[in-house]
Amino acid sequence: MKSNRLEAFSDGVLAIIITIMVLELKAPEEPSWHELKSTLPVFLSYVFSFVYVGIYWNNHHHLFQATEKVNGKILLANLHLLFWLSLIPFTTSWLGENYTAALPVALYGFDLLMCAIAYFILQGIIINFHDSDSVLKDAIGKDIKGKISLVIYVMGLLLSFYNTWISILCYMLVALIWLMPDKRVEKNMI
Amino acid sequence: MKSNRLEAFSDGVLAIIITIMVLELKAPEEPSWHELKSTLPVFLSYVFSFVYVGIYWNNHHHLFQATEKVNGKILLANLHLLFWLSLIPFTTSWLGENYTAALPVALYGFDLLMCAIAYFILQGIIINFHDSDSVLKDAIGKDIKGKISLVIYVMGLLLSFYNTWISILCYMLVALIWLMPDKRVEKNMI
Amino acid sequence: MKSNRLEAFSDGVLAIIITIMVLELKAPEEPSWHELKSTLPVFLSYVFSFVYVGIYWNNHHHLFQATEKVNGKILLANLHLLFWLSLIPFTTSWLGENYTAALPVALYGFDLLMCAIAYFILQGIIINFHDSDSVLKDAIGKDIKGKISLVIYVMGLLLSFYNTWISILCYMLVALIWLMPDKRVEKNMI
Amino acid sequence: MKSNRLEAFSDGVLAIIITIMVLELKAPEEPSWHELKSTLPVFLSYVFSFVYVGIYWNNHHHLFQATEKVNGKILLANLHLLFWLSLIPFTTSWLGENYTAALPVALYGFDLLMCAIAYFILQGIIINFHDSDSVLKDAIGKDIKGKISLVIYVMGLLLSFYNTWISILCYMLVALIWLMPDKRVEKNMI
Repeated sequence: MKSNRLEAFSDGVLAIIITIMVLELKAPEEPSWHELKSTLPVFLSYVFSFVYVGIYWNNHHHLFQATEKVNGKILLANLHLLFWLSLIPFTTSWLGENYTAALPVALYGFDLLMCAIAYFILQGIIINFHDSDSVLKDAIGKDIKGKISLVIYVMGLLLSFYNTWISILCYMLVALIWLMPDKRVEKNMI
Repeated sequence: MKSNRLEAFSDGVLAIIITIMVLELKAPEEPSWHELKSTLPVFLSYVFSFVYVGIYWNNHHHLFQATEKVNGKILLANLHLLFWLSLIPFTTSWLGENYTAALPVALYGFDLLMCAIAYFILQGIIINFHDSDSVLKDAIGKDIKGKISLVIYVMGLLLSFYNTWISILCYMLVALIWLMPDKRVEKNMI
Repeated sequence: MKSNRLEAFSDGVLAIIITIMVLELKAPEEPSWHELKSTLPVFLSYVFSFVYVGIYWNNHHHLFQATEKVNGKILLANLHLLFWLSLIPFTTSWLGENYTAALPVALYGFDLLMCAIAYFILQGIIINFHDSDSVLKDAIGKDIKGKISLVIYVMGLLLSFYNTWISILCYMLVALIWLMPDKRVEKNMI
Repeated sequence: MKSNRLEAFSDGVLAIIITIMVLELKAPEEPSWHELKSTLPVFLSYVFSFVYVGIYWNNHHHLFQATEKVNGKILLANLHLLFWLSLIPFTTSWLGENYTAALPVALYGFDLLMCAIAYFILQGIIINFHDSDSVLKDAIGKDIKGKISLVIYVMGLLLSFYNTWISILCYMLVALIWLMPDKRVEKNMI
């Protein structure tokens, strides 16, 4: 089985997830600065999730760049990843309206954590399937970024019950780790 | 006619169906456990339908893997399948809010049944069109899984008027049949 | 310029149009036959529009099957067609809730008419661009189906102010003309 | 890295943006001319944004026509462009309901300006990456259209606090500049 249809389907789902979130950004009732400002938390949570889904699309793109053939397990692991990603519009919407409450912040982090774990599983299955193919394995390397992300997500999730701003900073930190690659890191670990 | 554009269009429709359902998952009004728990039935019906649409995408992918050329009949049969699949967000939404009432559970099963019948028709037309192409015919084989699914759907549909939990278990059973392929079955029947 | 990206974009837009309409099919408040029946007009208008968008996708597919290269004019004419098609969810939603009132029925027919005209323009531009390419011109032929459709749409549109059922029958008739091709017609006119 | 998956993802996002806006076009409550007319401003803002997203798709198509390989920077710059484009449904919805108020008109213009800047950045990065490839550079040329657009957007944005109709005319002017290419301009600047 070739990977191109899997990529096309994933692209479709990711494109819809990233765009559907904007439907939560309701136009303010009145044309005033005050009303516009009140949409700011929802807007910022949209920006945040857009960046996250963008990073996932980016990494997914890199991962399947090196993957030519797929099997049934890879299809399932990919659907599993898409499932957790598809919940981002829901967790984003709750976060945007309640960014100072522990539960929505924790749930947002939990979904990010599950996405990361699902990505890990998918990556592992792909490496296993291409074991002779050392290019992919080398490219992913020790995946230090991926492992650090998991730890920070768990920290953010737990800290949300103490202070939600620290949690949000944790989630931002992970996004920054993936957005600002230093060359050396990029070469060794994607 | 080549099949790639039919696949791309179907991927698009399936990607939208699978993602649009999440719009039914409204963010709870208040950031409390109690409110979050109240979204559980809607969430579970989302998970359920996600799995079903995922399985259909998977099977559709396999079916057209072996199909190189298509004709007008195949285009129509494919649109017919997409039609019943496109109703899943509607039946899911009704099920999520009324999972203990007979009618929504029966309607959900009815739509799954119609999807299965539409898939049967599509598969039959494709086999007829490629009759010399014994690879496809062999791959699908007697399609025991497909036939068993139809029987369980009808059972689930009828039993919903007796007990909705039994119906839901029936629908779960079909999903499990398709998710857990034993190697031998996979080889002979896709 | 190659036509594949134009096809991919059109597929995306058509897939979204066809699927987004199902969002108008709101789950009934209560799990009763009575409530389910009240969604019937909205459901039937969904079925109707699904068939129409399906036919357009089908014809678009055939048209670009024979089109290898595109120019700026074709891109614009295609966007023009997609614009009128994108209004179908709106006209469908109004029709579903007011199928006995003249204006929604007329507006629905007006949009179908504009889609047909836009398709005509697109087809004409493509033939002009490929003038040496007599295969395409022959395939489309005199386009009797297309011309008859235009006449019936105008009739349906005008008759809606007299009796909406006649209008709806007119629109159904056009759909049937495109769905049931006799072999001879199919060969000569797509 | 090849550019085809970036194009497919962008097509998906653009297709959804262009189609999702129609969801703001709510069917009027009653089947009367009066009610239909009241949807006119929302309809016109939809038309306007449809044209804009269409122009962006067109230009994006041209730009990547000449781009064969992409790097990480191009992926990010493309996501940046898609972000500002994804806000168009939101700004359109606010504009449609408040087209005589300064703030929604200014915000609409601000988003168009950011889209144009993001397109500029993307274009610059692509040219840098293909520096030996003089075809692309020549094709884009001095990009006079692009620069004029930026100036008119800023003017429109500022003038909205004086008179919103002048702003709207400014935005229309930019759309016209891109829709009506004279041959010479098209050759030299895309």
